[in-house]
Formats: sequence, C-alpha cells, structure tokens
Amino acid sequence: MPSRPPSGPRSSQARPTSRTQPDRAHAAQHGSTKGGGGLWLHGLHPVEAALRNPQRRLRRLLLTEEAEATLAARLGTRTGTPWPLTVERTDRARLDALLGRDAVHQGAALQADPLAPPTLEAALQRPGPVLVLDQVSDPRNVGAILRSAAAFGAAAVVVQDRNAPEETGALAKAASGALETMPLLRAVNLSRTLVALKAAGLWVVGLDAGSGILDGAAFAERRLALVLGAEGEGLRRLTRETCDEIAGLRMPGAMESLNVSNAAAVALYELTRLR
Amino acid sequence: MPSRPPSGPRSSQARPTSRTQPDRAHAAQHGSTKGGGGLWLHGLHPVEAALRNPQRRLRRLLLTEEAEATLAARLGTRTGTPWPLTVERTDRARLDALLGRDAVHQGAALQADPLAPPTLEAALQRPGPVLVLDQVSDPRNVGAILRSAAAFGAAAVVVQDRNAPEETGALAKAASGALETMPLLRAVNLSRTLVALKAAGLWVVGLDAGSGILDGAAFAERRLALVLGAEGEGLRRLTRETCDEIAGLRMPGAMESLNVSNAAAVALYELTRLR
Repeated sequence: MPSRPPSGPRSSQARPTSRTQPDRAHAAQHGSTKGGGGLWLHGLHPVEAALRNPQRRLRRLLLTEEAEATLAARLGTRTGTPWPLTVERTDRARLDALLGRDAVHQGAALQADPLAPPTLEAALQRPGPVLVLDQVSDPRNVGAILRSAAAFGAAAVVVQDRNAPEETGALAKAASGALETMPLLRAVNLSRTLVALKAAGLWVVGLDAGSGILDGAAFAERRLALVLGAEGEGLRRLTRETCDEIAGLRMPGAMESLNVSNAAAVALYELTRLR
Repeated sequence: MPSRPPSGPRSSQARPTSRTQPDRAHAAQHGSTKGGGGLWLHGLHPVEAALRNPQRRLRRLLLTEEAEATLAARLGTRTGTPWPLTVERTDRARLDALLGRDAVHQGAALQADPLAPPTLEAALQRPGPVLVLDQVSDPRNVGAILRSAAAFGAAAVVVQDRNAPEETGALAKAASGALETMPLLRAVNLSRTLVALKAAGLWVVGLDAGSGILDGAAFAERRLALVLGAEGEGLRRLTRETCDEIAGLRMPGAMESLNVSNAAAVALYELTRLR
C-alpha cells in the first residue's frame, strides 16, 4: 500500500491551486538544498518532462542561455507566452556548485516538490504489468527501471518504502522524464501489496533463478505483477513465498549476473514482445 | 582496431613475470591516485574477480577485517596459503577517503594496472556476438554492458577510444567482475573496426529505429556484430552507413527511451533466447 495520501492518477487535470500552495510539510521529508525545500531536478529531459506535468508543484527554474533556448524550442513556448514559472538565468559554474560536479545538468535545474503518488487502485486503472522492486536501493537503477517501465507500457512501479531511494535528482535524471508519467508507489509492507495485487486479479511472478523460465506466451491472457529483488541477494523469503510462481530469464549465463535494471528490461521485453 | 599492443586472449596462462614487472608507461596513461599509478578497483565482486585473473598486474590490496574474511571464504584461501599479494588491513573511513564517499567499496580496494586488451582477431576466437559501442561515455553504462555481455555469452565489447571512458573503478564496479573476463577493446576508428568485423564474416547490425525489427530467429545461422549508439543521438551517420542493416527492438514505446545498457541487454536477449 502506498505510504502517502492518495492524490488521484497523474493523468487528471492540474489543480489550479497546486502551484500556488506548496505543501511544505511534504517537501520537508526530502533531501533539499538551499532555496525553500523541494528537490532539484536537472538535465534537459527531466526538466522538460516536469514542466509539462501539471501535477508537479514548481518552485524555481534555473537555466543557462543555451538550455533556455533548447527547452523553449522543445516546449513550443512562443514569444510572449510565459513559462509556467519565472526563468532565472544562470551559468554552468553556478549549477555545478548547486548540484555537485557529478550531476549532468545540461544547463537546466528545476526545484520542485516531490510527486504525490496515486493509490494502488488508481494506478491499476492503467494497462500493463506492475513492477515491484524489493529493496532496489540505487536511485540510478530505480530511475532506469522507471524508464523501461514507460517504454514497455507498464502500469506502475512499486518500491518498498524503507529500502528504496527517495525521489531525487539522480533518480529523475536516470528516469529521463519517465518519473513524470510512470506512477512510482511506495509500499510500507511489500507482502501486503502483493496480496492486494493478487486480490485485484494480477498473477504475481517473482523473477529469480528457479525451476521455471519466464515465457511471455504463457501470460498472454493474464495480467502480471513482476517482482525483482536486490542485486546479489535475490528475493527475500517472505516476498518469494507470497509470489504465485518464481521464474528466471532464459539466458546462457547466470541471471544474478545481470544488473537489476537490465534484468527488469529483459523481463518486460519478454512479457511484451508478443503483443 | 585496438589501440594497444596485443597480449593474447585473457584465458591464457598467467605469465610469471606479469606481477613483478609492472608496465609503468602503460599505467601512466590512466587516471591514478596516490601510491604509484594504476587504478583502484573496489567492491567485493570486482576485487575478487581481479584477484582471480592471472592477467591482472596487482599492486596493493586494502581490506577491512570483514572484507578479508568474506574474500578469503570466496577465494578458498586456506590458512597458510598466501594471497596473491600482501593484504593491507584498513578501515572504512580510510577507504572512503581514498575512493570518495560515493564509491560502494564494501571494505575492499585493489590497486592494479589496467588490462591490456586482446587483438580483435584473438577476441573473435571466443564464440558469440560482438557488441560495438559508438560513443557510450558513461562508465556505469559501459560496465553494465560488459556484465550483460558476459551473462549472454558475447565474444567481446568494442568501444571507440576517443569517446569511451577509461577503465576505472566505477566501470569495474558496474561490470561486477565482468571486466576481468569480457574482452574490452578500444578502437581508434570504429568504421574500420566494422569493416574488419565484416571481413571476419560477421553480419553488422546497427541497433536503431528503422524499418526492421531485431529478430533473433533471423540470425540463427549468422554471427552478429551489434552496434549501439550514444543515448539520445543514436548512431552517427558514418557508423550507420557502414552497418549491413539497421534494426530496432520490438517494443510498444520508443526505443530511444531505453537506457543504453538496457537496450543492449534486451538486444542480447533477443539474439540468444532461441539458442
């Protein structure tokens, strides 16, 4: 079950008040830098996607001259048409200092509130399989998985609240915009979420070395929840026991040797390649 | 063509002199920290794999008490059997200071010389497809691709020398040991490498949105070289024109929306799932 209050699916209309009444109590849960809380998204794709997302509460937009021109062209902002918030002109050195030198910011940084995820029930209104991540803690892996989930038409990604990364700039950068469109739900108790998914009619498959091989053809008529464990350790016992079945990937080497985001992409491909 | 002198395939026997005559001119090409050149590998998997690799020239091994116990168990080092080099006991704080706080070192750091890659001809003695990376610059992506290449039984990974990351601790960590077993070749001119691969009988497929769809069944009788471009930009014109054909992945969304290491994993899966 998501640990935060429901807000309805993200595809709903923007609420007119959402950008004028920032939820400071919510933002305070998250790692923030100077400037009033919230997180800093960076990079052209994540910033563009967040600017397009009516559910994002926007705070500050810092752009270099070059990034402003690029984003204006992508967003189709005509002369005289305002951006959704004031653009503050900056330079690369200031962004390096703000975001850290490892951040590939491409001249663009957007301070925004974290998204309030939909309820599981609302997320299941979307078509496609559900991905459940059991203790995948690397924000880049979670981001890449969100990106693959969007590319392969998944309904939602569920992470375990306690062991998953917060929504961060690094996660959003790796998601390359998918954080704005792919529901990311945080569950306090993953086993209870799996039970809820079963109750909603999904077949729960744990991806792990086992007797079976994941075969998309076998699931053409069934909606799946696909559960992935932490790298190296696989699925925890309770998670494993809650699955309807365990299946591995058809591959010459050992499945554990794949990066978890690569395993997720291959599994999603197997589930959708026949559609 | 690889830019470094050939050294034969890595599966050959250890040369007795390899650990006593470090090639300092070679090591000096690479980013090094204090302590006499070479690179610092970190993390249990990369360090274990490097210790097992007779081709690695080892310099210093720093382990916490816990990491030493774990590695001793994995390597089967019996009491009285020496490690391949002296273990220097350290603690986490010193490793944090040495490697940077973002490095997930797990208490293990190994200073070693970069590997001398085999020639293309030697690498082609191994079975499986060849992956060619055109300007994939993120060391974590290259590392994850090496890992998938090993898991799916590829022969080698070729990168463009000028635009690819050097062999680094971050690359080795993402490769999770695969850097020691999967040949990583650096080509000065990627188009010339593609021509050489064709001359060696390989069919060169560029992975990009195009008219065709990558279908493993179509290549059951042919050995492939699979070319992947930079994220967002795809294949460069000359690279694209040198390919025998261009094929995309069968997926509901846009292929460009996949992380490049995920695209590589899915393509390798498609090529090997029928074997």
